[in-house]
Amino acid sequence: MLAQPQHKYRPHPPIDLPDRSWPSRTLTQAPIWLSTDLRDGNQALFEPMSRSRKLKLFAELVRLGFKEIEVGFPAASKTDFDIVRTLVDEQLIPHDVTPMVMTQLREDLIRETVRSVRGARRVIVHLYNAIAPAWREIVFGLSVPQIVEMVAQHVGLLRRLTDEAPETQWVLQYSPETFCMAEPEVSLSVCNAAIAAWDAGPARPMIVNLPTTVEVATPNVFADQIEWMHRRLDRREHIVLSVHPHNDRGTGVACAEQALLAGAQRVEGCLFGNGERSGNLDVVTLALNLYMQGIAPGLDFSDIAAVARIVEECTALPIHPRHPYVGDLVFTAFSGSHQDAIAKGFAAQRPDAPWRVPYLPIDPKDIGRTYDSIVRVNSQSGKGGIAYLLERDNGVVMPRRMQIEFSAIVQKHADASETEIASAEIWRLFQQTYLESPYQGAWRYASHTLEEDGEGDALRLQLDDAAQRDRIERHGRGNGPIAATVAALDPSMRVDGYEQRSLGTGAQARSMSIVEVAHPRVAGSRFGVGIHENIATASVLATLGAFNRLGLTGGARR
Amino acid sequence: MLAQPQHKYRPHPPIDLPDRSWPSRTLTQAPIWLSTDLRDGNQALFEPMSRSRKLKLFAELVRLGFKEIEVGFPAASKTDFDIVRTLVDEQLIPHDVTPMVMTQLREDLIRETVRSVRGARRVIVHLYNAIAPAWREIVFGLSVPQIVEMVAQHVGLLRRLTDEAPETQWVLQYSPETFCMAEPEVSLSVCNAAIAAWDAGPARPMIVNLPTTVEVATPNVFADQIEWMHRRLDRREHIVLSVHPHNDRGTGVACAEQALLAGAQRVEGCLFGNGERSGNLDVVTLALNLYMQGIAPGLDFSDIAAVARIVEECTALPIHPRHPYVGDLVFTAFSGSHQDAIAKGFAAQRPDAPWRVPYLPIDPKDIGRTYDSIVRVNSQSGKGGIAYLLERDNGVVMPRRMQIEFSAIVQKHADASETEIASAEIWRLFQQTYLESPYQGAWRYASHTLEEDGEGDALRLQLDDAAQRDRIERHGRGNGPIAATVAALDPSMRVDGYEQRSLGTGAQARSMSIVEVAHPRVAGSRFGVGIHENIATASVLATLGAFNRLGLTGGARR
Repeated sequence: MLAQPQHKYRPHPPIDLPDRSWPSRTLTQAPIWLSTDLRDGNQALFEPMSRSRKLKLFAELVRLGFKEIEVGFPAASKTDFDIVRTLVDEQLIPHDVTPMVMTQLREDLIRETVRSVRGARRVIVHLYNAIAPAWREIVFGLSVPQIVEMVAQHVGLLRRLTDEAPETQWVLQYSPETFCMAEPEVSLSVCNAAIAAWDAGPARPMIVNLPTTVEVATPNVFADQIEWMHRRLDRREHIVLSVHPHNDRGTGVACAEQALLAGAQRVEGCLFGNGERSGNLDVVTLALNLYMQGIAPGLDFSDIAAVARIVEECTALPIHPRHPYVGDLVFTAFSGSHQDAIAKGFAAQRPDAPWRVPYLPIDPKDIGRTYDSIVRVNSQSGKGGIAYLLERDNGVVMPRRMQIEFSAIVQKHADASETEIASAEIWRLFQQTYLESPYQGAWRYASHTLEEDGEGDALRLQLDDAAQRDRIERHGRGNGPIAATVAALDPSMRVDGYEQRSLGTGAQARSMSIVEVAHPRVAGSRFGVGIHENIATASVLATLGAFNRLGLTGGARR
Repeated sequence: MLAQPQHKYRPHPPIDLPDRSWPSRTLTQAPIWLSTDLRDGNQALFEPMSRSRKLKLFAELVRLGFKEIEVGFPAASKTDFDIVRTLVDEQLIPHDVTPMVMTQLREDLIRETVRSVRGARRVIVHLYNAIAPAWREIVFGLSVPQIVEMVAQHVGLLRRLTDEAPETQWVLQYSPETFCMAEPEVSLSVCNAAIAAWDAGPARPMIVNLPTTVEVATPNVFADQIEWMHRRLDRREHIVLSVHPHNDRGTGVACAEQALLAGAQRVEGCLFGNGERSGNLDVVTLALNLYMQGIAPGLDFSDIAAVARIVEECTALPIHPRHPYVGDLVFTAFSGSHQDAIAKGFAAQRPDAPWRVPYLPIDPKDIGRTYDSIVRVNSQSGKGGIAYLLERDNGVVMPRRMQIEFSAIVQKHADASETEIASAEIWRLFQQTYLESPYQGAWRYASHTLEEDGEGDALRLQLDDAAQRDRIERHGRGNGPIAATVAALDPSMRVDGYEQRSLGTGAQARSMSIVEVAHPRVAGSRFGVGIHENIATASVLATLGAFNRLGLTGGARR
């Protein structure tokens, strides 16, 4: 870091708006929400979502209540094009939901974008171009008048193309990208050029979307920028004013809230703040912030843990334990004085009175969670809490996919019991599910011998049937005990993975073996676990346990 | 969630401050920083820090440039008392650093707190009590005059006790806890009572610290609250006005920034936003936000990845890949148009000119990072990136402690080469470090046989010495190949853990065994890795590799 950063970095120039009104306003209603999880969110993943994950997340966004969903950049991506066609052709878009497709200002891309949504009932076409000085000068080499002309020209093209397809209701969204870094007068010129070229009006709906793109100033400056634009935009009453915050300075939520005070009517963002770099606006946090102020957000997060599970599965990114509202730790009070105050608050809270429990700004039940004075697990807990308790109290480290399998089992049990589940109960479920299955399934472990010779491991496995009437002996060979056990039980079974690790250290250490298997006759996979002093025995038990958990009927047995 | 939340939740009442001045101000200097990592941060961990971790983190906070550090609640915690005594008695507090100790308003606690810091050069004693209506009414059953009287009385007690110990420079910090939820007039009364009782003045320094405790309103409301107080506090010129934001609404950084515009001079927070629930203010983000505006923050994050490693180690909590400035993904551009603009920006950037690279609001080099158009690893990368690449490209999943060991090896290599390290290079280092060690150490693997009988595994291990002159045969027995190998090599070696898992699936699957060993004659532990079609062979190789990596000299050999 530089001792004198003022030579390298300049503060963002403030907006001259001494009569700003937004700091005196209060939020009274929810904005229109646009989810860009399938676009900005998807673009910024280690691995972009597969087609099936995209469709799954689209369905979840619909279920949550989003009425506008950005589905991709169909002219730039074959995958996105196909997703858009699937949504339209298979009528997966509910009547009250509008998809949005984005494109840069290029004639071929705009034509292809319009083609991609042919037949849709209603579509938002999102045109954008970067307008800030650094982009104009370094990236494009264009003057302001050239930029304005380019916008007018391409919006005009879109207008002509969409006029030729009146079976679709067309909405234009224009975004002056890098808005927050541009001179306000330039932003206004390009937006008004787009408004004029589209001829925005009651029959020609239009959204002007003002992004931070990269956060560069304190959030009050962004609010001033929005109010400045809000006061000056042409045909303001026919325009939906939207914002698209990012989070480079960790102030994305604040920018969105203060922009709503300043005149914005719509916000774009992602669930849990996914997106490029430090992410887009976190729409879950903003929605629940509104809810906590008594404003119905129009999005349903009444089971926030379920939403988190779907998003974690689709994005393969974790949600931080301190993430507002959803993190594992946010309804946990570690401090004794906090615990005491919360207990008194719950005791004093009358059912119909306004919520007033100290240290809990929102009733956790409203979003399907509970307050915990320690880390506890119940039917709403994520896999994180379950995995944490199993590791802390029993030394069991589950692979991620196994956490998903086991947390579903725990949640089913918790739903049935409607109570909190203590750590001992989780361990009991774990034992019952995994450790007993070699002894309680269709084939029950009796004994085995394993011999290594020059050609691998030779297994002789003694099994009882479920009624314990027959003693069966099976033989198998393989590179190691797992392969030998598979060979002995059912060669059609496929081992998708295994892990072995120690439980405890030193002389008392035992081995835990975890095996994931699949079978052509069973959907999905199953995990099996063996714990034994002998590694090989643990592996045999794990493989047999997984086999029993496949639940194959007699036909699978030779 | 409720369809009509307005019956359960009420919006926070706004502050009547139509002539507020903060939205027209711009930040021009850094605040005084107070780290509460050892207090609020530590309190909210799954497992509180050990003594050695606390001392390590204290030293790191000093190194980073914090001049005020909250070290604990010594009257309530024996651990905290002992830490404070260690810091004072062992003179671990630099001359320009002031420790802060906190306590509630109770006579015995205040006396014990003063005792705990006896002999220190300069100390901030932090008194706090909750003052908002829900707390007064539900938790304490006290009226406003009773609260004011309680504050005056206990501050008076502290004044008398500290007057008796003039060898220490005493500073009072008074925090009206739950300030953001209290009526402004009540906050003002209690703060002015504390100011009078302390007789704050040039010779009697005092900090008034206004916490959000729980965020309940948009950040502009907090700024109004601060400016309201700033204008009205008694003896304002002798008071340091401080804020202590939390992050329940995801707007902690915004609250801090706008409070600084509104008159605050000091902020309290934790590195990377650790702390109860959704965390305290993230001081790293705030400091770098200032830096990015050309303001020297007075904290040194020029090697932010190193800070992240220490904090992750001390807190055992992860830092999210999208965390501003420090997350693995924040200097990665996935989009082609962004990559293109950034490339042009780097090409156009003159060394002495103000920073102006599109999509990079800060020069990553200033904080010891680099811009990546893909996920890359260099000497500043955290273990996350290394682990990610090894898993993605080679299927290797390292245990967490092994990630720490191996990332140090990668960083050393990267420091030497001063270039980015491609994934293939990481794999080469992994092979060289782990997979070759059974064949290249003091004892080199030649062959083995392993027989299982009724009493466990019997291993016959053929080894060559480093010069390949002698062929040695060792015998060992144990429950499984790892134990047998330990017995054959050196029974003093202790196995701290092992994992085995598959590499790949189906017929091509091999087994990877990872063993962590320790030895009485070597500090720390070492990992060994074996990859082989046969699980047992992989374990023998891993154990031998780990043994060789201990670097024992001839004496260890029998």
